[in-house]
Amino acid sequence: MSTSRTEAFSDGVFGFAATLLVLSVAASLASLSRTIDLASQLLLLWPAYATYAVSFLTIGIILINHHGMFSRIKRVDRPMQFINLLLLMVIAFIPFPTALLSSSLQAGSSEGVAAAFYGLVFAAMGMTFTSLWGYAVWRRFIHESVHRGHAKASLARAGIGAPGYPLAALISVFSARAGLLLYALLALFYLFDWLPPVEAERSKRPARTGAPDSPVG
Amino acid sequence: MSTSRTEAFSDGVFGFAATLLVLSVAASLASLSRTIDLASQLLLLWPAYATYAVSFLTIGIILINHHGMFSRIKRVDRPMQFINLLLLMVIAFIPFPTALLSSSLQAGSSEGVAAAFYGLVFAAMGMTFTSLWGYAVWRRFIHESVHRGHAKASLARAGIGAPGYPLAALISVFSARAGLLLYALLALFYLFDWLPPVEAERSKRPARTGAPDSPVG
Amino acid sequence: MSTSRTEAFSDGVFGFAATLLVLSVAASLASLSRTIDLASQLLLLWPAYATYAVSFLTIGIILINHHGMFSRIKRVDRPMQFINLLLLMVIAFIPFPTALLSSSLQAGSSEGVAAAFYGLVFAAMGMTFTSLWGYAVWRRFIHESVHRGHAKASLARAGIGAPGYPLAALISVFSARAGLLLYALLALFYLFDWLPPVEAERSKRPARTGAPDSPVG
Amino acid sequence: MSTSRTEAFSDGVFGFAATLLVLSVAASLASLSRTIDLASQLLLLWPAYATYAVSFLTIGIILINHHGMFSRIKRVDRPMQFINLLLLMVIAFIPFPTALLSSSLQAGSSEGVAAAFYGLVFAAMGMTFTSLWGYAVWRRFIHESVHRGHAKASLARAGIGAPGYPLAALISVFSARAGLLLYALLALFYLFDWLPPVEAERSKRPARTGAPDSPVG
Repeated sequence: MSTSRTEAFSDGVFGFAATLLVLSVAASLASLSRTIDLASQLLLLWPAYATYAVSFLTIGIILINHHGMFSRIKRVDRPMQFINLLLLMVIAFIPFPTALLSSSLQAGSSEGVAAAFYGLVFAAMGMTFTSLWGYAVWRRFIHESVHRGHAKASLARAGIGAPGYPLAALISVFSARAGLLLYALLALFYLFDWLPPVEAERSKRPARTGAPDSPVG
Repeated sequence: MSTSRTEAFSDGVFGFAATLLVLSVAASLASLSRTIDLASQLLLLWPAYATYAVSFLTIGIILINHHGMFSRIKRVDRPMQFINLLLLMVIAFIPFPTALLSSSLQAGSSEGVAAAFYGLVFAAMGMTFTSLWGYAVWRRFIHESVHRGHAKASLARAGIGAPGYPLAALISVFSARAGLLLYALLALFYLFDWLPPVEAERSKRPARTGAPDSPVG
Repeated sequence: MSTSRTEAFSDGVFGFAATLLVLSVAASLASLSRTIDLASQLLLLWPAYATYAVSFLTIGIILINHHGMFSRIKRVDRPMQFINLLLLMVIAFIPFPTALLSSSLQAGSSEGVAAAFYGLVFAAMGMTFTSLWGYAVWRRFIHESVHRGHAKASLARAGIGAPGYPLAALISVFSARAGLLLYALLALFYLFDWLPPVEAERSKRPARTGAPDSPVG
Repeated sequence: MSTSRTEAFSDGVFGFAATLLVLSVAASLASLSRTIDLASQLLLLWPAYATYAVSFLTIGIILINHHGMFSRIKRVDRPMQFINLLLLMVIAFIPFPTALLSSSLQAGSSEGVAAAFYGLVFAAMGMTFTSLWGYAVWRRFIHESVHRGHAKASLARAGIGAPGYPLAALISVFSARAGLLLYALLALFYLFDWLPPVEAERSKRPARTGAPDSPVG
């Protein structure tokens, strides 16, 4: 099976999950009091803004990496579609831990549990993402233009990054705010490209048809 | 009419409906008590997670089969677009029975009725899906590369699978948990390809233009 | 400007608005009583299901006509994009009158006002849709393969259909249920193709590139 | 990297955010009283309709400009994808200030603060949008068919429009209604094309492949 429909559906779920995040901010409206100054209250909503920003950027950056991954993959099979579905299931779940952490930080109670739960969902996202890439490498679905040694090395690099979210989740039990900062830094860390090189050749060609024809490396 | 816009709209509705499922999980936040340990409460929310996962995977797997079906169809007419619209209407409805079953399992009341209602919606989904394929076979909209005998045989196979959801709905009246497990197994069952063969030839070509030129079988 | 991005954005708004309709059904969950038999209560929710179905089918059928319209249009300009935006603004608004009519019918109060408001939103949808087509005919954005006399005649046909929603809205003041039935019938009425002929030629070609090269008629 | 996936994801977020706006209108349903005439109450909801219309049109018009911008850009890199992500983060946030302004105008309290907050979010949207274009000009990602002097001049024009939202936000502190009117006028102002000329040549070609081959000017 070709990858185009899988990519289109994935794009939809990523974009929609990111946009739904605003509902947990909007839910804060119900708790606003008309007797206190609105401007002060809007400042007190900082956990809603901070968790919104961290979750939105994380989803967006994982999407950019998802694009990068699929630009190196030439086809998918049913098991790979199923693993991709598991990844999307975790992505679409993110609005829930986001709303939970936001409301815990606002209420000032159970912050550690909420922040750790948030981190565990992100850890599950990282695990399914790495499994997707690992399965594609194992089944040799990677495009010929990607050097196989490079593809395996990128898996090792992903393995090094893997303990990031569980570790941040552990730290967040003791300080939810430190945890949230770590989650933000991890998102920026994943902004850097960890996939094997091929882009330089591809960028000169149209996206849909561009199959790089020379191995890189 | 060509199928590309119909497919794009269908992809959107499948993706949106799957992502909206998280709202029924997030609704559980309102019922959380600040006096009880949050970690224990998050464990008690298992029905929200389980119904989310079963509904998400079911929608995703039906989508994969929808892709498979449309890759074998060369054109659509207005009646077929209408049947597809009925299918999407059922798919987009799924967040409601999901929320109902989740809240019933959490409250521990009327579980059987809620689980049966959930199964009946899935049964309606299966019926409209099979009607769509049946209409396409009847009107000879199937691509020439698919052997007509194989297309008819796949309809018979779909007929064998048809009683699955009504039967699970019946069982779920007596045990909602057993019913939920059956719905999960049915989703995995539909992950296997029941459509007539053609993929092997197609996967070597680009998705949009790839019209297989030799009959299979 | 070419039409492809305008079509993609429109598809998204149509699909998303249709999928959001389920939230007004799900909102009924809050009013469910745990002391009354759930099965009976699910039957009493019929207005939620009926308004969901009518709104979903109306949006879906207008989308099919939107596809038909844009398959006859060769380009758009900024004013036409603005008129399309007004149409999308009305489409995306539909979940509100749907929820209003559903809750009025369930509560058994102010049904007439809610049903008339619902009809007026559909009338606004019809007006902006016809304006979009009228503007395209006036600015000669219609594809050469469509006979100009046919394009103008289709505008006249659209004019004949125009009083349908206002009339149904007027009737629904006296009987909301009769009005809802009329709205359902109007949706089915618009399922029939009222646009000028060209499809027969197009269906043999790929959707994206297929510019019919001979005038019809 | 080519721009097609970035555009598709952006289209999704714009469309989702615009459609989610209706939820703040629908939230007004909860505050409806069954003892007062429904028709009068629907008229009193004018702030919900007005803020819905202004936000929807603003998002739609920024999307049209986003299309115009990307039709002049030949490729993107990771930093540019990140700036685009920041823009989308602001766009997807818009339903929150919209709901806040709508409920403040309905309650008749803290209108000025809510309207100014609304304007500041729009100002942030304008700033990230201009940054995106500025980065593309600086990195020479603009298509060869656009005259470099024209590209720089368009940045200066954008700079002139930049104080619009902050100024309207300041005015809205004193009169939220005047502010809302200004936001509507600013949206219509941005409907006019401020980007450097190239469209005339492009409109004759198919959208996906059309690379204008002659410099304009």
